[in-house]
Amino acid sequence: MFTKIDHIGIAVTDIEAEIKRYEKDYAVKVLLRENIENQKVLVAFLDLPNTTVELLAPSGKDSTLHKFLASRGPGLHHICYEVKDIVTTLKNLEDKNYKLIDKVPRHGARNSKIAFIHTSSCNGILTELCQY
Amino acid sequence: MFTKIDHIGIAVTDIEAEIKRYEKDYAVKVLLRENIENQKVLVAFLDLPNTTVELLAPSGKDSTLHKFLASRGPGLHHICYEVKDIVTTLKNLEDKNYKLIDKVPRHGARNSKIAFIHTSSCNGILTELCQY
Repeated sequence: MFTKIDHIGIAVTDIEAEIKRYEKDYAVKVLLRENIENQKVLVAFLDLPNTTVELLAPSGKDSTLHKFLASRGPGLHHICYEVKDIVTTLKNLEDKNYKLIDKVPRHGARNSKIAFIHTSSCNGILTELCQY
Repeated sequence: MFTKIDHIGIAVTDIEAEIKRYEKDYAVKVLLRENIENQKVLVAFLDLPNTTVELLAPSGKDSTLHKFLASRGPGLHHICYEVKDIVTTLKNLEDKNYKLIDKVPRHGARNSKIAFIHTSSCNGILTELCQY
C-alpha cells in the first residue's frame, strides 16, 4: 500500500543556482543536503511541509542522472511514495510483473530504505518507494 | 510565497485504465473526478493525504494535453504549489521576468483559482499555482 507522496525528484544541472532560485523567487529554503554516494547524486530537500522537493544533481559524469540530463534536460525526474513495508511491497509488485530496478532495498537519503521501479512499468513515470 | 505542494499532475491517455492500476497495484483510490472544460481535460484526484496526484487525460483532440501526450508520451506533467495570494504571487514572478501562461488566475479543479507558469521560466518544469 502506497501511503503518501514522500517527495518529488527534480533533476537539475547546477544545484546551487536552483537552490538560490527557489529561495529567492519561491521563498522556499533548503532543509537538508546530502551526497548519496551509491546513486552518485547530490541532493537538497526543500523546506516544504509533508511532501517535499528533492533537487538532484549528478556528482560525476558516470552518474545515471548525468545521462538523463544530457538526453532530456532538467525537469521532473521521479515521484517517491512512502510505504509501510518496502520488502513486501516490492514482492507484490514483482508478482504483478512490475520491472524493479532495485529488487532489494538500498540506503537512500534521510536514512531511508529505497527502491526504484522502472518507468516502463509505471506508465512513463520513474517511481521510487521509501520506508523510514 | 509557495506554501506547499498541492498536487502532482500526471498525463495519461486512458484515465480509466490508470485509475484501475492505481487502485489495484498501489491500493490508492480515486477521491474526486472533474471535467475541466476550460483546460479540455478530464481529471481524477487520488486519495492521498495532503499532496495528491492529479491524473489528467485530454477530453478532445484540441486539448493542449493531447499534443503533450503525442510528443512526449504519458508521464509527469506538472507540479502545483499552493500559494496564499495568487494575484500578488503572479505579479511578483512577472516582476522577476517569469513567463506567465496565465496572467490572470482562472477557475481550476476543486473550486480553486489557478495559473500556470511557463516551463522555460522554471528550469524545465511546467509549474501551476493554486489558491483555495
